[in-house]
Amino acid sequence: MSKSEIGLLGLGTMGAALALNIADKGFDIAVFNRTTQVTRDFAKDAGDLAQRITPTENLKDFVAAIATPRTIILMVPAGDPVDQQIAALRPLLDDDDLIIDAGNANFHDTNRRAAEADGKPFLGIGVSGGEDGARHGPSIMGGGPRAAWDRVAHILTAIAAQHDGTACATWMGQDGAGHFVKAVHNGIEYADMQMIAEVYGVMRDGMGLDYTQISDVFEAWNNGPLASYLIEISHKVAGANDSLTGAPLLSVIRDAAGQKGTGRWTAIEAQHLAAPVPAIEAAVAARNISARTALRAQGQDIFGAAPVSLNGALDIDQLEQALIAGKILCYAQGFDMIARASDDFSWALPLPDIARVWRAGCIIRSVMLDDMATALAENPDENLMFSKRFAGDLRENHMALRQVVAQAALHGLPMPALSSGLAYFDAMRTARGTADMIQGQRDYFGRHGFMRLDRDGTDFHGPWAD
Amino acid sequence: MSKSEIGLLGLGTMGAALALNIADKGFDIAVFNRTTQVTRDFAKDAGDLAQRITPTENLKDFVAAIATPRTIILMVPAGDPVDQQIAALRPLLDDDDLIIDAGNANFHDTNRRAAEADGKPFLGIGVSGGEDGARHGPSIMGGGPRAAWDRVAHILTAIAAQHDGTACATWMGQDGAGHFVKAVHNGIEYADMQMIAEVYGVMRDGMGLDYTQISDVFEAWNNGPLASYLIEISHKVAGANDSLTGAPLLSVIRDAAGQKGTGRWTAIEAQHLAAPVPAIEAAVAARNISARTALRAQGQDIFGAAPVSLNGALDIDQLEQALIAGKILCYAQGFDMIARASDDFSWALPLPDIARVWRAGCIIRSVMLDDMATALAENPDENLMFSKRFAGDLRENHMALRQVVAQAALHGLPMPALSSGLAYFDAMRTARGTADMIQGQRDYFGRHGFMRLDRDGTDFHGPWAD
Repeated sequence: MSKSEIGLLGLGTMGAALALNIADKGFDIAVFNRTTQVTRDFAKDAGDLAQRITPTENLKDFVAAIATPRTIILMVPAGDPVDQQIAALRPLLDDDDLIIDAGNANFHDTNRRAAEADGKPFLGIGVSGGEDGARHGPSIMGGGPRAAWDRVAHILTAIAAQHDGTACATWMGQDGAGHFVKAVHNGIEYADMQMIAEVYGVMRDGMGLDYTQISDVFEAWNNGPLASYLIEISHKVAGANDSLTGAPLLSVIRDAAGQKGTGRWTAIEAQHLAAPVPAIEAAVAARNISARTALRAQGQDIFGAAPVSLNGALDIDQLEQALIAGKILCYAQGFDMIARASDDFSWALPLPDIARVWRAGCIIRSVMLDDMATALAENPDENLMFSKRFAGDLRENHMALRQVVAQAALHGLPMPALSSGLAYFDAMRTARGTADMIQGQRDYFGRHGFMRLDRDGTDFHGPWAD
Repeated sequence: MSKSEIGLLGLGTMGAALALNIADKGFDIAVFNRTTQVTRDFAKDAGDLAQRITPTENLKDFVAAIATPRTIILMVPAGDPVDQQIAALRPLLDDDDLIIDAGNANFHDTNRRAAEADGKPFLGIGVSGGEDGARHGPSIMGGGPRAAWDRVAHILTAIAAQHDGTACATWMGQDGAGHFVKAVHNGIEYADMQMIAEVYGVMRDGMGLDYTQISDVFEAWNNGPLASYLIEISHKVAGANDSLTGAPLLSVIRDAAGQKGTGRWTAIEAQHLAAPVPAIEAAVAARNISARTALRAQGQDIFGAAPVSLNGALDIDQLEQALIAGKILCYAQGFDMIARASDDFSWALPLPDIARVWRAGCIIRSVMLDDMATALAENPDENLMFSKRFAGDLRENHMALRQVVAQAALHGLPMPALSSGLAYFDAMRTARGTADMIQGQRDYFGRHGFMRLDRDGTDFHGPWAD
């Protein structure tokens, strides 16, 4: 029996989809899952692809089924399971066998595992696109030794999403660089989804649109500057009916958002990097608040329902423009964070390539990312909101964002992400801010010292220090 | 020569002030600083208090000068220096000698050091109030073994600030509980200061008030519901003149805020706890943005200065009311985070005591904290914004907060903290939010499942899963 070109361990939703994708692209693949029945069912349901799949029922057979030097993809839950599988596999492997963690690892763990690999090939790759992406073409962000990436690049580019003939699979840098970029992707995803939810709230509660009308609005937007996977599925979600009751689906879904923690990681890492990502932070906080359904009901009892009806104060075009502006500002924050990390970790993260790799396959794919790739290629060191293209878009759309934020504030429609996006915009275009007051206070109570506008030096004090 | 009752190591600004405070309250104290000249100068400048101070010039003499069982306060920079000093001291100490880290430690480090102490007495105490507080009465938040706290409580309560005859020094719980509470204090401090800076910006840029007028506004507010140390010093900072030029002090201070990291720690820990503290996050982000002075100048070049003049759209009373509402919401977030940590770390943090200990001595001391202590004593498990007293205040003031946020949005005045406070309020008083859209999207792309409004269960799916 001929050996498989690659092995995949962990046949959960994402692992199974990725394995089928690999087989579908013509690569022979050995698979293994801790629960044997899962492996058998997977092979049985693989149809025509079964001929390329070698199911195995113990680790030794799994390793033996793969051609040397081996390549093994781990698709197990992030955290301890990854370490356990690596520990179980390594004794069975040769030193030049490559282990790839393709799960949702925290990049700090990937950094650690890269160090622990001690020269043996190890890659951490971020895979975005959900089950469908994994099956038919995800966006792949790789980190680790360049030589290890090159060894397996022909498979990863073959299974990745394609955008105008370019594969959405890119090596980002050493160690945890791939998982880091994936984390920022997810942070942006949180903010993008939250901003969509906020304008959805304006349509539903402020404008009194029904779900079909809301679905139609998203459909129309998906033919304009906002065209993106998330707007497309917002159209589908708002237009869907519940299988159990026939009611509009959204009307039966509890408004309590779950999360798997990657938005949180992004927010935490941004704090370490001193990178301002207020839209992402607002989105994570909004999910946390949403989960407190009893508390919010208590709040409505105490304060009464807000007078959310806008009585025509806003129109749909303003919402679209506000979302365009908000989206640009949210991506500007995400790319700024990547630039900071690139410096801090000496990764030389390729910003234009990151925009390119996100153009297809992943959850945040959008037409706007194409222009972002262009803008970042022209000037990778410039904040995206200052680029010619996006500065122009912001000039066109920020007045609508102001109106939307102002009307939401007046009518009690919660708008944490869009309002934080606007505050970011205004802070970033204000040469003379108000932190002079903060510095004055800090010097007053802690003698922390301040810089001056009129001369160099960092340790001036107010008259209280005389 | 009789032995000192306590020793203090580290005569920087805070350490020197605390040592003088201790001597001033009648306790004999031995002091040591790595640089001998600092110790000598300190003793020389101590005036009448010198009789209670025993300066020492090496660790062995320092330890020998303290009565057994010894109590030693470390006042060295947070991080490695604390570990180094503990490592240097322990071999010279008896097992029942007590080491107190009174610096600005990250509470995770305090947890670790408590474990490493291995039964030997160790306390981590948060000390707030700046140099002046340390000298004349700080707010003290203690963590560690209760017995160790009791041993030294007579000194700590004597040197602490007093509020109506009650000392602002309280044992918060085991291990890092004291430093944790201090971190949240600092996070709230960041948000409080940022909100003040935002209304300062409205007065300066939106209303065209001069610094004297702004100072007068803060002075007037300090006689009302906002009465607090931070409003008092805002009055003084705005009214001060620069010693070098005679110009208004604020007009020469560069608008680039520094930070020592404790606000960041709070934001990070809030993420771990899934506790929404958007006002604190907004304040940390605002400081990070403020530090990017060149970028903001570029932004103003590209987008032009915002049309910040309000032309009378807001008055001073509305600003005061907005700040009252914003402040309540920011404290509600902070206390909510403490409640979460109390559960997560099994600390049983005494929320009413925390409000009490903040009433005097510390940077965020205010008359409002007295009412917060009362509200929390009545119902420690209730979100502060839902308490009878503060719900009433919010009802009275939230309309002004809406007007201020809306006008700031329309006129380009950055208002990240106040607008996030408003969004928090509106989300917390909205029984039916918009996270149904987020859950619908998550189920669409990742089959994550959702809960329903009309029946129990956690894993329902949209029709795409059929």
